[in-house]
Amino acid sequence: VAAAYGLALGLQAAPVDEGDAALRQRFEAVRSMLDATRPTAVNLRWALERGREVFDATTAEGATAVASALLQLAHRLHADDIEANRRLAEHGAALFDSGERVLTHCNAGALATAGIGTALGVIGAAHRRGAVAQVWVDETRPLLQGARLTAWELDRLGVPHRVVTDSSVGALMARGLVDRVVVGADRVAANGDVANKIGTYVVAVLAARHGVPFYVAAPRSTLDAGTPSGDAIPIEERDGREITRLGGAELTPEGSEALNLAFDVTPNDLVAGIVTEVGVLEPPYDRSIARALADDT
Amino acid sequence: VAAAYGLALGLQAAPVDEGDAALRQRFEAVRSMLDATRPTAVNLRWALERGREVFDATTAEGATAVASALLQLAHRLHADDIEANRRLAEHGAALFDSGERVLTHCNAGALATAGIGTALGVIGAAHRRGAVAQVWVDETRPLLQGARLTAWELDRLGVPHRVVTDSSVGALMARGLVDRVVVGADRVAANGDVANKIGTYVVAVLAARHGVPFYVAAPRSTLDAGTPSGDAIPIEERDGREITRLGGAELTPEGSEALNLAFDVTPNDLVAGIVTEVGVLEPPYDRSIARALADDT
Repeated sequence: VAAAYGLALGLQAAPVDEGDAALRQRFEAVRSMLDATRPTAVNLRWALERGREVFDATTAEGATAVASALLQLAHRLHADDIEANRRLAEHGAALFDSGERVLTHCNAGALATAGIGTALGVIGAAHRRGAVAQVWVDETRPLLQGARLTAWELDRLGVPHRVVTDSSVGALMARGLVDRVVVGADRVAANGDVANKIGTYVVAVLAARHGVPFYVAAPRSTLDAGTPSGDAIPIEERDGREITRLGGAELTPEGSEALNLAFDVTPNDLVAGIVTEVGVLEPPYDRSIARALADDT
Repeated sequence: VAAAYGLALGLQAAPVDEGDAALRQRFEAVRSMLDATRPTAVNLRWALERGREVFDATTAEGATAVASALLQLAHRLHADDIEANRRLAEHGAALFDSGERVLTHCNAGALATAGIGTALGVIGAAHRRGAVAQVWVDETRPLLQGARLTAWELDRLGVPHRVVTDSSVGALMARGLVDRVVVGADRVAANGDVANKIGTYVVAVLAARHGVPFYVAAPRSTLDAGTPSGDAIPIEERDGREITRLGGAELTPEGSEALNLAFDVTPNDLVAGIVTEVGVLEPPYDRSIARALADDT
């Protein structure tokens, strides 16, 4: 949604009489700049492709028409995402028994989407049905999206929660304190392998060991039929200083460097189900994902 | 070692003419205060028991003799720990092939022991033999002993290393970037279950999944014949503010609380070997641990 609005803003800057070639050059410059911001998440590229279709269809009508059509696209993707979040949340909430203790990683809530979120949308809807006793919030180093964003959203939703360090997941599960895991996704490959924030794979492996069902909440825009498996998903490496510094303070001694992989890949055999706006997909994922992408409801 | 010096300092405060009953009361007060500082680590209690034996043997000779004997005990434990570290490191280093990439969690180095450390002693000795290409340093939330202490020690030892978030362990192993794990221990139960800093169990589970050998470096003072299995090891829960605050700054929104389990338990079937000063113990651990404790070399 942000990328679509970005395209619209970028093309609004075009002079009204800009010629076809210059207009196309401008579009490509804006598109490629937005595209380069996040290599792992696929819905960014998905939105930019939708933008390219709109550009191609309207470019002959001139700069004003292009900018207007791109803004309409952004509004439509925005509205679609709100609705997809809502439907996804209802499908996911239907999975819950009563009084569950749910663990989530990173932030896949209203702050990360146009609507109520994906994983947090599911948890919020399940809580409104009385099915959630407590949420375990992984703090999610290095940027602490769990401790800062997810905790804030759950507080506003009135959902009981406790923040834990990422490495507490083993102890919590060994004590039987986790009934279900629900996380978001940056990209789901055609075979159901899931790229999501670093640490998600660790949670999935521990969940498998302890028999805790591990669910991924992912709107169809994150299902990537063009990527056969997780091996083919590019994993963004971010600045090591996200790990070695916090709030301007140096955490590590001078001379120590960090490796900051931003995402990891969870293989499909660890995933109990993928919650989408057209229902909960189950293994074999190659078939259920293809069917979900073909669904035109 | 610190507890033994603590007993000596506490008893040095006794008036030279203090009577038996008052002296014993003083000893108990100091001993129980020290004992309450760390419920999980067993070598603390082990040292306090050695102190009690010394107290019982010397109390009839009066306060000055007691304090002097406790100071001698502390010096002896101090010297023994240095020597045990050294021998343990050599046994552990002999396990290594060349050019290994080793992962460690928390700090089990010179800053945590009287000598060169346990896990870091092993890694340092292996590095001097040219067997270590690089060390992956888990930052170890919440107190960041890896990022702050282990990174500092490795820098001083000249060992190449990179700091990673705790939840990177899955991605690193999935990419084949870890050849061995070496960690310390706060207590090893009679069956070989290991209590160590929170997150150790997570590392062990991932190591098992990826066929990476997982070693525990533990001097005999951490082997606890009196605790049958990990279930019986008390796990310290620390102030949640260690997670929600850092360097005086609030990380979580007001109203969000944290659960701060300081340790977890790694079951013995995930442990490839326990490196002690009398050699590397192998399964079945009930037998090899009993034999190591009986060893009087």
